[in-house]
Amino acid sequence: MSKHSWTLTDLASRTWMEEFSVALTGTGDATGRIDKYTLRGGISDGVDVVEIHNGRLSLALLPTRGMGLWKGSCEGLALGWNSPVEHPVHPAFVDVHDRGGIGWLTGFNEWLCRCGLEANGPPGDGVTLHGRVANLPAHHVRVSVDTSGPGTIEVQGVVDEAILFGPRLRLTSTLTTTLGSATFSIRDEVTNLAGHEADLQLLYHTQFGAPFLEAGSQIELPARQVVPRDPRAAEGVSGWNRFLGPTAGYAEQVYYFQPVADAQGQTHALLRNAAGSCGVSLKYRPRELPCFALWKNTQAVADGYCTGLEPATNFPNPKAFERTQGRVVRLAPGESRVFHLEFEIHATAAGVQSAQKQIAQLQPGTVVVSATPQPGWSPAGS
Amino acid sequence: MSKHSWTLTDLASRTWMEEFSVALTGTGDATGRIDKYTLRGGISDGVDVVEIHNGRLSLALLPTRGMGLWKGSCEGLALGWNSPVEHPVHPAFVDVHDRGGIGWLTGFNEWLCRCGLEANGPPGDGVTLHGRVANLPAHHVRVSVDTSGPGTIEVQGVVDEAILFGPRLRLTSTLTTTLGSATFSIRDEVTNLAGHEADLQLLYHTQFGAPFLEAGSQIELPARQVVPRDPRAAEGVSGWNRFLGPTAGYAEQVYYFQPVADAQGQTHALLRNAAGSCGVSLKYRPRELPCFALWKNTQAVADGYCTGLEPATNFPNPKAFERTQGRVVRLAPGESRVFHLEFEIHATAAGVQSAQKQIAQLQPGTVVVSATPQPGWSPAGS
Amino acid sequence: MSKHSWTLTDLASRTWMEEFSVALTGTGDATGRIDKYTLRGGISDGVDVVEIHNGRLSLALLPTRGMGLWKGSCEGLALGWNSPVEHPVHPAFVDVHDRGGIGWLTGFNEWLCRCGLEANGPPGDGVTLHGRVANLPAHHVRVSVDTSGPGTIEVQGVVDEAILFGPRLRLTSTLTTTLGSATFSIRDEVTNLAGHEADLQLLYHTQFGAPFLEAGSQIELPARQVVPRDPRAAEGVSGWNRFLGPTAGYAEQVYYFQPVADAQGQTHALLRNAAGSCGVSLKYRPRELPCFALWKNTQAVADGYCTGLEPATNFPNPKAFERTQGRVVRLAPGESRVFHLEFEIHATAAGVQSAQKQIAQLQPGTVVVSATPQPGWSPAGS
Repeated sequence: MSKHSWTLTDLASRTWMEEFSVALTGTGDATGRIDKYTLRGGISDGVDVVEIHNGRLSLALLPTRGMGLWKGSCEGLALGWNSPVEHPVHPAFVDVHDRGGIGWLTGFNEWLCRCGLEANGPPGDGVTLHGRVANLPAHHVRVSVDTSGPGTIEVQGVVDEAILFGPRLRLTSTLTTTLGSATFSIRDEVTNLAGHEADLQLLYHTQFGAPFLEAGSQIELPARQVVPRDPRAAEGVSGWNRFLGPTAGYAEQVYYFQPVADAQGQTHALLRNAAGSCGVSLKYRPRELPCFALWKNTQAVADGYCTGLEPATNFPNPKAFERTQGRVVRLAPGESRVFHLEFEIHATAAGVQSAQKQIAQLQPGTVVVSATPQPGWSPAGS
Repeated sequence: MSKHSWTLTDLASRTWMEEFSVALTGTGDATGRIDKYTLRGGISDGVDVVEIHNGRLSLALLPTRGMGLWKGSCEGLALGWNSPVEHPVHPAFVDVHDRGGIGWLTGFNEWLCRCGLEANGPPGDGVTLHGRVANLPAHHVRVSVDTSGPGTIEVQGVVDEAILFGPRLRLTSTLTTTLGSATFSIRDEVTNLAGHEADLQLLYHTQFGAPFLEAGSQIELPARQVVPRDPRAAEGVSGWNRFLGPTAGYAEQVYYFQPVADAQGQTHALLRNAAGSCGVSLKYRPRELPCFALWKNTQAVADGYCTGLEPATNFPNPKAFERTQGRVVRLAPGESRVFHLEFEIHATAAGVQSAQKQIAQLQPGTVVVSATPQPGWSPAGS
Repeated sequence: MSKHSWTLTDLASRTWMEEFSVALTGTGDATGRIDKYTLRGGISDGVDVVEIHNGRLSLALLPTRGMGLWKGSCEGLALGWNSPVEHPVHPAFVDVHDRGGIGWLTGFNEWLCRCGLEANGPPGDGVTLHGRVANLPAHHVRVSVDTSGPGTIEVQGVVDEAILFGPRLRLTSTLTTTLGSATFSIRDEVTNLAGHEADLQLLYHTQFGAPFLEAGSQIELPARQVVPRDPRAAEGVSGWNRFLGPTAGYAEQVYYFQPVADAQGQTHALLRNAAGSCGVSLKYRPRELPCFALWKNTQAVADGYCTGLEPATNFPNPKAFERTQGRVVRLAPGESRVFHLEFEIHATAAGVQSAQKQIAQLQPGTVVVSATPQPGWSPAGS
């Protein structure tokens, strides 16, 4: 009786739960719950939300938006950012062709969303900014709990990106957390269901605002080289790891990295506030996601003050450029790739310091900070 | 107990009323009612409608389409037109990029809709015909009544037009009417929620067909100059203020005006039928809406026989042209502009004559009717 | 009491049946039923389905997708194909401008869908691939039964394709079947509701996979000439009427025909499996639909192994080319065109042979198989 599973959505079997709610406890003190509801009205009309609460950490997932993570909170710390787009946007209201192919931004509101699956990066060559997956709803959504141990919650969604004469890619995304914990993990599997070889580009667009981001916040991540994407990023390269407070008129700066992994193949990026009293760790495997883009977007709060931590299969350059650099994954028919991410929220200085220690151990002795864009890293360097 | 307010939609608090109905009376004889429902099926599936009846005048508002006014009637007189698009269109079925950027017209069905907020006018420079606002749903809708006096009904909706790296404009639209009255007013406030300066262009696209429009109908409005938009309009400039009956193959003619205000800052346009036995007055403030376009579209009835009365912040020329003429409003961060419109329906000759008298008082002694497009007024004049 | 009719959707009168179910019997043994439901979740969220079962044949219609036929089955034989797009797609999730105007393919999943009404064929000249109608929902849906005789089921839907300053075309589609029968018929009427002359292009895109399509399947149809659309089709012209099994990397081949009619004005195309033990007949009137395209798409199963039988008013060439060939129908204001199709499913060799006999009688003594594209047939021949 300790394992339960509920299918909230399954298009193939015409399964659909308009609303869903369950509470759970494990062997510890923490109480968790899972709620599913649908937003009504405005540009969110019809957006399904699966909220999970593990007793310490809350997360809101969006099956309607490619299993993106809308927002969350942990011990009172807000996870996410305040996009100028205030509410989650139903894909019906997103016209990706707006403004020369960057209409994706009219729906960009999540804490974590995926860019892909066939392509990400700027518009061009018949694709629009950051691809289709963030605007595709899951046709299968299942929640599972296991209360035999400390209590775990799992949410799985399946999203297909398909077209005749083109890609047929399936994302199976599984998010897991344990009652009372400040961590959660994501396991994404992308499968080429087509009968032909297919491209795969996947980028995790993960945004943070206050309280993790503020004047003096820092990012720490182990890498041998820091490369500015373009001349604008080059202007600020000496302070690449420190953040400004909200700055009206700030133009984004993006830095590229190839992070270093530990013996188990994992790397670790930490965003922490100025005092080092709170932070977020993002752990993943460079073998799966070799490229990391740091998006510094410290505009005015009203304009979406945030920073983006973006592990990916590629850098968010034009796909044609990435292809010349061998950074477009090719999947054989039936082939899959798996991607693992783990988030840990630190609500104390001790937690932050512990993360810093881990990262310091991975940090190469010498770090090259390139003053200018570099060949092979971005078109501006070529 | 005489003031009541109901929130029909509020995305932020997850408030949603699937259906709503209320009747009211004031100190007079008239009985009013407010009904909210959602259309189902066809291209209207999911379109919310708020209908208000003040005992004399009926109005149907469309929160799903930027708080547009779908249609109305007053003492048996139909308000609106018969668009070739027969039903109100859910934005999900509108592809604004169709036909080179004029897909907006596949959703154009309302009596009154707004064109804006960032831009209106023809497609170009990354924007599509008449902008986004008519295809954006309100995330907040509230109806209020006050029955302490004659009885008033108010409907307020809030619509956001936002994108990262672009405009973040909020329209708060309030429509008010009094029980037993043949008038209603609209107060629109547009606020720049962004942290940067922003463009604002707003045009009220207000269409009338029968019975107000027929062969011999006239428009009266006080202005010093009548300017044809283009050579086609120039062909008919001598009869600019008189309308044809339905005319198969008629190509639209558009005239531009800068209306004259009275001492209180208000101007007045009247559309009346041939006999002068019925008409509609539109009053607004040229300080808020300095430009007026008259759209003569007396095509066959099947093709959407109508005329459009279009007060606006600008003329519906390409935005780049309007910018060179100083007719693009710039809003500082946090700045708002307010726009007031008042409609009065005249069901009698006496009402029409009274309106005519008012307009005559404002009419300058000399009116210049330009035979050709004029510099500064439209690209064709430059 | 033997005739009943139910309106499932009527936007004008605000009629809407969320769900509907009825069973019927006629004077024979067969029992039929009609069910209406709405799909929820994924890219099918909000798609209405009308399923009819005549005791032998099942059909699923999609009012939300222009009255397309999603799928069917007859005596255990599947009607339709397995598109890489696995589920019927709500038009809100189709962006027709994707990939240079072929985004229609992201919604292409049906057994039978219509291409038109203003245009079909490749994107260009302001229209996107295969036009609008497959992504337009019916605003009126009615089911009727007559149980006085053997028992008939009729489903009628009305779909409007309209825009100001453009076409205003109405499709009234009626599908009829009789209890216990292996046939059904479609009668489509397209009316020009505009006040001006209008273009009409209509193509029936009808796909079959297994069991009708397999290695060695053949198509039989009476025509004087077989014309390859382009060099790729020319490569396989000698085997134009035979099909490969699933073939990874197969590039589509399309052949054009002007089928021959019988004395009653009807023609007959048969797709049958290799053994001739099952098949599907498609009968229609060349006077109504003079052009027939055979789409050979024997790709891998995962990529949508199928063949398309495509009777049409025109060949699916660029519309400008079709216009030069006089193959764009012009409708006067108020004018209608009617199109009749009849499908018969053969579950036995005897049925297949009977169809073959009929076709053989129509087959001209000499058939010209053109080795190359021909002038007037396609741009590649010109």
